[in-house]
Order: sequence, then structure tokens, then C-alpha cells
Amino acid sequence: MQFVRYSANGKTSYGILKGERIQEVSGNIFGRHQKTGKSVARAKAKLLTPCKPGKLIAIGLNYKSHIGARPAPVKPEMFLKTPTSLLDPEGEIIIPRNSGGNVHFEGELVIVMRRKGKRIAATDAKDYIFGYTCGNDVSERDWQRGDLQWARAKSSDTFSPLGPAIATDVDPRNLKLQTRVNGKVMQEQTTSDLVFDVYEIVAQASEVMTLEPGDVIYTGTPGHTEKMNPGDVVEVEIEGIGVLRNTVKAEV
Amino acid sequence: MQFVRYSANGKTSYGILKGERIQEVSGNIFGRHQKTGKSVARAKAKLLTPCKPGKLIAIGLNYKSHIGARPAPVKPEMFLKTPTSLLDPEGEIIIPRNSGGNVHFEGELVIVMRRKGKRIAATDAKDYIFGYTCGNDVSERDWQRGDLQWARAKSSDTFSPLGPAIATDVDPRNLKLQTRVNGKVMQEQTTSDLVFDVYEIVAQASEVMTLEPGDVIYTGTPGHTEKMNPGDVVEVEIEGIGVLRNTVKAEV
Repeated sequence: MQFVRYSANGKTSYGILKGERIQEVSGNIFGRHQKTGKSVARAKAKLLTPCKPGKLIAIGLNYKSHIGARPAPVKPEMFLKTPTSLLDPEGEIIIPRNSGGNVHFEGELVIVMRRKGKRIAATDAKDYIFGYTCGNDVSERDWQRGDLQWARAKSSDTFSPLGPAIATDVDPRNLKLQTRVNGKVMQEQTTSDLVFDVYEIVAQASEVMTLEPGDVIYTGTPGHTEKMNPGDVVEVEIEGIGVLRNTVKAEV
Repeated sequence: MQFVRYSANGKTSYGILKGERIQEVSGNIFGRHQKTGKSVARAKAKLLTPCKPGKLIAIGLNYKSHIGARPAPVKPEMFLKTPTSLLDPEGEIIIPRNSGGNVHFEGELVIVMRRKGKRIAATDAKDYIFGYTCGNDVSERDWQRGDLQWARAKSSDTFSPLGPAIATDVDPRNLKLQTRVNGKVMQEQTTSDLVFDVYEIVAQASEVMTLEPGDVIYTGTPGHTEKMNPGDVVEVEIEGIGVLRNTVKAEV
């Protein structure tokens, strides 16, 4: 199934995406929920981030193709992003006015948690995960290099596009991921190339941090990244999930 | 005034602390709220973190006495902490079982935001701030040195003690801060020694991140820090705010 969050007719709802229609769902998508019987055409709804995470964790250096000559990590290397950096599908990625403008895309598979847990074993992780969505871990490379930590480099407003849907029935260990800029393929890899797979990531993150329903984990980006420019259309597509599409704009 | 959040008689409430009593408040402490007329003895209430922040920002290297031989930053150096790392006043700081145990205290003045804002001018910051509380930016130094980023070093569960009260009428530019371990003074400084004061911090953070009501900013720690050991009682006291007291325990 594909869960979405959307606004339509002045109301924000959760729903299940089926082809070109969204079936409205009431209740808690991570717990008890049911279809209301109402539906809306996808074209008439504005898709929002498919959940509202209390916490955004991200993993650095998690594809050999991205690590390059750097030493491979011996554990998932975590960093944090802020909820205020989240951006809806179709929303505009804003290049901050005071940055050098060296703002890169990072197409990523994102884990969405279903159950609260601490010290989850990798072999149990599947039971704690709700599903998977697409993410773009937008990164200001000059700030990332020059600052003490990656806070503004990774968590400026609009730097965490997420969506469009949470797919609950995909196998996260072998999904094709593609990032395109203005239609040109910039990143292409399958998630089977992750250094630490999604279950290992959940195990290691939850070793020290309690994971909660709706928390998300960006799992790392493959290959090469490039600077985005105002006017660009950036798409992260993952097999079985959908296309996360955002446009780029300079802050005025 | 001193705002607290507490549980008493099986119910969680906000309140105003006056001497040894808490006067219950209903509504939104950052907006419309009023006293309900009920009160409870402080001794009969369990104090909780005084707000529930959506975002925890922290500033590194913000007292000359802490920077030592390192170069002083030219801007507030931000990093992030997770909401799940928050710890109530009187709660137990847990030393993670898989860490080297090199877990330090960092006593800090913490800003609590009142109004949503982006690109707030330093001269306007006071209008956006609700008040100030005490924080302990607990830090696993081995992880802080060895990891790519400070995620688990600063955001393991219980690593963000906060409270006991939010003081709304103190002048944040000249408050005496003291950290004690088992009664012995370990850190002592006034906030007049901050490299970047609270207004400059709010201005610079909000340049790229929208700040929201209840968001908190740990402003940095002075002087020298040391390792805490199981059984230690750690107190962060700030003039006009109160004492944030936590005990230390090893994870089993």
C-alpha cells in the first residue's frame, strides 16, 4: 500500500494512493485506522510530507560509490536534520540568500518507523518499520565543509524534501533509485549497494536513541552529487515508491 | 514569572511556580493562557521538561573560557539535538552501555522561543523569546571525537536535561551560571562572557531555520568539563532560574 498525507477542499488528511485516486483514511496510520469511504482525485489534492516526524536521522557515507577514496565507516554514521527543514512533494527548495549557493541534491531511500523502540535487533527491525519513501538530503557543501557541524548545511528550511508516498510492501534491500535534474539522470543505483542496510541502521540508531512512530531515517546517497541551480527540477524516483519532485529557487 | 510543566494526581499540566506552590495554568503558555485557580505543593508534583520543543539547537564553543587554545568562531556554531534526548529535572542521565563511559556535563543557559520567526533581527529577538531555563548538554567525548558528526555523542536518550522552570523576567546577558557535581563547583561563569549573546544567536539561527514556539537553544558551556560517574548528582544552577538536578546511572 501507498500512504500519503494531503490537503484537499481545505482539509488535511491521510490517505491511500491507488492509481489516480486517494482514498481517505481516518485514525492513526501507524496504528488503528480505516478508510472513510471518501476519495479524491490525486490531481485535485496537494500532497504533503507523508508523515510528520518528530525526529529526522540521516546516515552519511553509506554507498561505496559515494565514499570514493574516503575510508568506509565501520558503523552507520548518523547525523540529524530538523523537522522545520521538511519540504512537501512539489515544494520549492530555497537556496539561502547568505549561502555560497553550492547546494547539492542527495537522492535517498528513507525509512519510516511504525513502532516505538529502543535497542531493536536487526532481525526484528522489520516489525518496527512502517515503510519507505523518497528523500532529498539537500546539502550546502561550503557550509558542510566550513562549519563545526552540519546543522545549517543540512537543516536550512526546505532542505529535507520527503515523499510522495510511504510504500509499505517493498523490499528495501533491492530497489532502484534514480535522481534526475531537468530530466537528466544524475544518480542511479540500487539499495542493494548500501553499506549498512535498513535493518542494520535501525538497530544501530536505536541502540542509543528511542525511535518513535513517524520518525524517519535518510539512509545515504549513492554516487556523485552536483550543485542545483534556480529553476532546476529535481526528481528522486525509487522503484515501487514514486517520484519526489521539487523545483529550486533562490531566496530573495 | 517562572513557568513549569509537571504531573500531579495523574495529570500533566503547565503552571506558574511561586515559592513552594505551583499555580495551574490552562491554555497555551506561549499564547493565551490563564490560571485555573487550582494549585499544588511543588513537593507533591513531579517536574517535567518545562516545554516540549519541536527542535533543539545548541551552540558550540561559545565561551572564551571553554574555547581555550582553539580559534574563536566568527559566527555561532550550531548543532542539533533530538527531542527524544530530553530529560526531566530530577531524571537519571544514563551512560550508554556501549559507550566508553567518557560522558561529560555541560551546564548551559537555554533560550526558549515564544513566537514563530525567520530572519529575526538581533534587535527584535527579545520579542520572540519566551524566557530562559537551565540545560545540561551531556556529551560522550569519545564519540564526539571519533564519529563523523555529533549525533549519538549529544543526542543519546537522556543527554538533554532541561528545566526546572522557564524564567521570563531575567536579563540573559548577566546571569551567574554554576555547575556542581556532588556539591563541588565545577563550572562558574556569568552569561556576560558568552561570545555570541542570546539575541545574536536567535538572529543567526533564524537566518536559515524557522524558529517555532517552544523551540530551545542551548547557548554553550563555559570553562572546563569533566566525566560524570554512576551515582553522581549533577546540578546546573542559573541565577533567577533555579537548579536543574540529575543523577547519573550506568545502563544495564
